[in-house]
Amino acid sequence: PTSKLPDVKTTIFTQMSLLAQKENAINLSQGFPDFEVNKDLSNLVDHFIRKGFNQYAPMIGVENLRVEILNKYKKTANVDFDPNSEITITAGGTEAIFSTIATFIEKDDEVILFEPAYDCYEPTVKLFGGKVRTVQLNFPDFTIDWDFVKSLVNLKTKMIIINNPNNPTGKVLTIQDISALIEITKNTNILILSDEVYESIVFDSKKHLTFLQFPELKERTIVAGSFGKLFHVTGWKTGFCIAPKEIMAEIRKVHQFNVFSVNTPTQYALAEFLKDENNYLQVSKFYEEKRDYFKNGLETTPFSLLNSEGTYFLSASYESISNLPDLEFCTELTIKNNVATIPYSAFYSDGKDEKVIRFCFAKKKETLDAAIEKLQKIN
Amino acid sequence: PTSKLPDVKTTIFTQMSLLAQKENAINLSQGFPDFEVNKDLSNLVDHFIRKGFNQYAPMIGVENLRVEILNKYKKTANVDFDPNSEITITAGGTEAIFSTIATFIEKDDEVILFEPAYDCYEPTVKLFGGKVRTVQLNFPDFTIDWDFVKSLVNLKTKMIIINNPNNPTGKVLTIQDISALIEITKNTNILILSDEVYESIVFDSKKHLTFLQFPELKERTIVAGSFGKLFHVTGWKTGFCIAPKEIMAEIRKVHQFNVFSVNTPTQYALAEFLKDENNYLQVSKFYEEKRDYFKNGLETTPFSLLNSEGTYFLSASYESISNLPDLEFCTELTIKNNVATIPYSAFYSDGKDEKVIRFCFAKKKETLDAAIEKLQKIN
Ligand SMILES: CSCCC(=O)C(=O)O
Ligand SMILES: CSCCC(=O)C(=O)O
Repeated sequence: PTSKLPDVKTTIFTQMSLLAQKENAINLSQGFPDFEVNKDLSNLVDHFIRKGFNQYAPMIGVENLRVEILNKYKKTANVDFDPNSEITITAGGTEAIFSTIATFIEKDDEVILFEPAYDCYEPTVKLFGGKVRTVQLNFPDFTIDWDFVKSLVNLKTKMIIINNPNNPTGKVLTIQDISALIEITKNTNILILSDEVYESIVFDSKKHLTFLQFPELKERTIVAGSFGKLFHVTGWKTGFCIAPKEIMAEIRKVHQFNVFSVNTPTQYALAEFLKDENNYLQVSKFYEEKRDYFKNGLETTPFSLLNSEGTYFLSASYESISNLPDLEFCTELTIKNNVATIPYSAFYSDGKDEKVIRFCFAKKKETLDAAIEKLQKIN
Repeated sequence: PTSKLPDVKTTIFTQMSLLAQKENAINLSQGFPDFEVNKDLSNLVDHFIRKGFNQYAPMIGVENLRVEILNKYKKTANVDFDPNSEITITAGGTEAIFSTIATFIEKDDEVILFEPAYDCYEPTVKLFGGKVRTVQLNFPDFTIDWDFVKSLVNLKTKMIIINNPNNPTGKVLTIQDISALIEITKNTNILILSDEVYESIVFDSKKHLTFLQFPELKERTIVAGSFGKLFHVTGWKTGFCIAPKEIMAEIRKVHQFNVFSVNTPTQYALAEFLKDENNYLQVSKFYEEKRDYFKNGLETTPFSLLNSEGTYFLSASYESISNLPDLEFCTELTIKNNVATIPYSAFYSDGKDEKVIRFCFAKKKETLDAAIEKLQKIN
């Protein structure tokens, strides 16, 4: 058959996880926690399965869950939305992003992306005939040249996709960034897809600013969220998207034919678990300790660490260690040193090679210790 | 925002389930079982959650599950495929269908559909710019005019979608149907999307013939399957698709950016549960008893029952009861008689009104009894 996505390969996350497995390496590549899920949460899933919550959930998601997500947003960000018409539970953050792009992008629409970028945006835009215009964050602080962003905006610009906190860099948007975005998009119909799946993981007393807090953005923004990231259950595939009523109505048309609904017992369990704010208010602190512990361990290695303001990723330049292209370096690091990571070039559509790799530190202490020990042997 | 699917509304299944709830009616509309899941299966999910299987499953699905699906196909249909390259676990049968259409349908491609048809095919084809050509099954036996099918085939025909057993009619394809399809598609590149989600529910000693059994079809066929239907867990959202390697490679490119992977603990549980063939060999018998029980109960009502060869649906003409259009009849039946059903017009793109409605009999005895009692009061 002919291919609509001839350039797409198996994602780097799958590739590196498979290599890690094959080489029996410590897997700091694909982003997922290796510690256990909170027992209260797993007990709740078991409870709802036994109570018979095993048939289709409502297409838009279980009502209690939609309401509890709203309550969380009220508490943490003083944000309001209508839990009936402005939120839909999705098969993870990924489906929220895919269904949003599927709903709005048509042939020759332009979409502005910021790179380094998570790898699903571009092929999804292309699948619907859209064209990607990329803005590369300034190295090594990952600031954004908003004048350049502005220069890319034209009548064909249908959507801007922005990931905040950003995977892989950990960059968290500042109020100045957000003001610039508001300025650029005002008096336009440009939609904003705000991938906020790491919103609960922000460090150093910084505050994540959800776009829902800014009325000028909220009216045109689709926010993607993830319980996989919030509660360390990436394998449950439960997320959500929030958008104004008219936008959400269109997204639901696609969602209902894409997956129809999302795993039922996990939705009921998550709704219960969200009721106790202690279950989600400590996530940043929890990961900040892991970041600091891992950073500390890497300080005596020749890696030059970049800043991580959020997410569960830490990036590092290996320039003083090797001249290899980053994919080859990661492959060698996995095979020779038994630590798997992700090369930054995978996050650039032009394959830009910054000699930077990404570590996932969402791991238990023993895993981080073992990785640190191996990385400290490098010289 | 402008709409890519201006004609699409909330699905009839959601509409009728909501009405049933509001009217406190017995819900025989949306297709889902109301009895409990096998305790062994729910125990297995609990077991794997507790054992820590809560992070991303492999993008293509858990290996054991892919292998056990193969083993089932070997046992029940003497069919072989490569569990590594020719099967992918999906977020239910729906995602298998959506991702397949997304992978192959481009602007102006033509897709042949058989009506009455499940409601997700047409809007999904349209979302990708494809055009639908429909073949209406002959009333009331639902035979297929294959000469007419042949007359629709042209160079733009990219795909034929066929649902076997068919929802809503329960029609099971005969070997003659399949021979006709083989004849029509030979020497073409037409893809066949075979929606076989009800393959385990076939009555009266009929045998379901999966297209995987026919080499001439297998090489161009994508089969969609569903554990929701097989094991009475529509809310777990776990299904699969099977296709030749080159076709599957393209579908995976879309699947990986659509949902990436599927709920992990349910995949491990289903793999274990599939190991015992007794868990799946009795499903047809189980539903045949329900069909016969329900049919028997309806025989003294003025409904004129149609044949149901498979699926968990039974259809009936209400012509001797009312002249109302079918949607209005179903609404009235829900409000006045407290039994919710699905009007056939929802399965026709031209809204054809056969004065036929669909009952879902995947219900426990008490539910069927209560519905029968209410329906028997009609005269
Ligand atoms: C869906 S696999 C990738 C997981 C992830 O978010 C990452 O590693 O960046
Ligand atoms: C996904 S809701 C519809 C369920 C179903 O298969 C049906 O009722 O036909």
